[in-house]
Amino acid sequence: MDPNTYVLEISGENIEKPIKLTLEDLKTKFQHHTVTATIQCAGNRRNEMSRYKPVKGGEWEIGAISNATWTGPRLRDVLEYAGLPADGGGMKHIHFVGLDHDFEKYYGASIPIEKALSPDGDVILALQMNGEELPRDHGYPVRVIVPGVVGARNVKWLGRVHASKEESPSHWQQYDYKGFCPSVDWHNVDWSQAPSIQELPVTSAITEPLPGTVISADETELKVKGYAWSGGGRGIIRVDVSIDGGQTWQPAQLLPRPYQPYNRVWAWTLWEYTVPLPEDAASRPDSIHIICKAVDSSYNTQPVRLNLRCSARTDPY
Amino acid sequence: MDPNTYVLEISGENIEKPIKLTLEDLKTKFQHHTVTATIQCAGNRRNEMSRYKPVKGGEWEIGAISNATWTGPRLRDVLEYAGLPADGGGMKHIHFVGLDHDFEKYYGASIPIEKALSPDGDVILALQMNGEELPRDHGYPVRVIVPGVVGARNVKWLGRVHASKEESPSHWQQYDYKGFCPSVDWHNVDWSQAPSIQELPVTSAITEPLPGTVISADETELKVKGYAWSGGGRGIIRVDVSIDGGQTWQPAQLLPRPYQPYNRVWAWTLWEYTVPLPEDAASRPDSIHIICKAVDSSYNTQPVRLNLRCSARTDPY
Repeated sequence: MDPNTYVLEISGENIEKPIKLTLEDLKTKFQHHTVTATIQCAGNRRNEMSRYKPVKGGEWEIGAISNATWTGPRLRDVLEYAGLPADGGGMKHIHFVGLDHDFEKYYGASIPIEKALSPDGDVILALQMNGEELPRDHGYPVRVIVPGVVGARNVKWLGRVHASKEESPSHWQQYDYKGFCPSVDWHNVDWSQAPSIQELPVTSAITEPLPGTVISADETELKVKGYAWSGGGRGIIRVDVSIDGGQTWQPAQLLPRPYQPYNRVWAWTLWEYTVPLPEDAASRPDSIHIICKAVDSSYNTQPVRLNLRCSARTDPY
Repeated sequence: MDPNTYVLEISGENIEKPIKLTLEDLKTKFQHHTVTATIQCAGNRRNEMSRYKPVKGGEWEIGAISNATWTGPRLRDVLEYAGLPADGGGMKHIHFVGLDHDFEKYYGASIPIEKALSPDGDVILALQMNGEELPRDHGYPVRVIVPGVVGARNVKWLGRVHASKEESPSHWQQYDYKGFCPSVDWHNVDWSQAPSIQELPVTSAITEPLPGTVISADETELKVKGYAWSGGGRGIIRVDVSIDGGQTWQPAQLLPRPYQPYNRVWAWTLWEYTVPLPEDAASRPDSIHIICKAVDSSYNTQPVRLNLRCSARTDPY
């Protein structure tokens, strides 16, 4: 992408004349804001789901999630500049279209206009990631960051923003990234029956030790580390860890986090827990089965069992 | 409560002089708004929890929840009238104090100031319920309605509103209505280790048939009815019903609901599901075990197993 020829088009069903913004416009015409947000693919931990029932899509382990600090103009300021009324003027969704093409289909998505326009929504057109120019793989030159919302709507290589009464007609909005009742499978799915995923539910994972880790017989304790996150700006209030497969639980230590306002907790929470190993652990190598579960500020927690998550997409959106 | 002598005091650590509003003031000085909101006690369905592990508190079945239409001034308008800056001016919580006393303790609670001041928060000082003067048992003459938040913060018989940097010191804010790790019980609970419950998680219940209902042998189907609701304005997108105790699931029919904006879905969702009865059901009277689970717009769902919910309060807040 040549930064000198790049333009971002802003249009809308109630915007008379679309405008085009250069990279220089985005850099200089608007106040910039910085947001630390975790972005997660809806298919994160899909390999675990496949142990219950085979699912389509990339066999993600626990790594289809990351956290970074993003800087750029607020989407709401750019929309206002383009002439969208502050209350949306009857529009219901903001569409994003990427400059990438995938098997001749464009990549597109949309979010509810309330999220886009809310001063507390913190949606930004990121030009920087962790204080440096956006890397190519992360969407250079512009990626929309929609904190608290599934990665699929955080469109990379952003080429167009469009206000509409309807959701994005994109394949990825209409026929993917939706969840269904366990009785629904690929042969009987009616995509129109489920809303597109926006905010994601609470989740957590163990990053250390890795599954199958062998511990020396003279170790008396084991440090467990992981992350936890919830969508919609709901902070993590607790992570419980079990070393006996869920029979008993202890609270993990949540690592210090920078202050984030109520219901605008976009960043993940890292946690640690030091497990005292049973004295006879060496003679019972399968006796330690470590699992974790997180609780968010709405006291939502993680289900013990998984349902099928229909998701054919394999890329790390 | 004599409506002629009633006064509501509005004060704050950054409000120089508290003001007192009469019922007439509340009726005439502010624009009134109407909100349909479900209010649920944190102890709803506590009798089901007690089947897993005995819990303290009233043995609520599925009825510690209700839905109504509330009308009155917005709390944010009243706070602005009293002189609170639009951004809260450094305050973090809004306290509510009831005029009732319980064993010489006053009833009080607080909510985050972001919820109180947000134009999308829909917090109102209700003077009417379902179009009529607030009934005594529902808080006459004034009850604060905090949609999407646990009933305990929807303080009845409201006497005082106070802006503060700190949470309410009330017993009910500090030493009740909190959740803990399963390893925590009444003998080792440290109340300071958990945040007070504000938004509640997704829930659902079957209202018909009642447990143990006997069905005539010639019935070929059974209509199941229920409710589902989630805190924080997250709407219900699906309710799944199982008639075999969770082996298989089918989606219920969600009954028509009035339009509620994105993430401001404060009212519950009623649902129905018609179960075709197996032909041999009469000879296997214990074969039908109906359960339900709901999914909210953030794709949070209900856990299969319950944790202890510390809650000593027995009243239907």
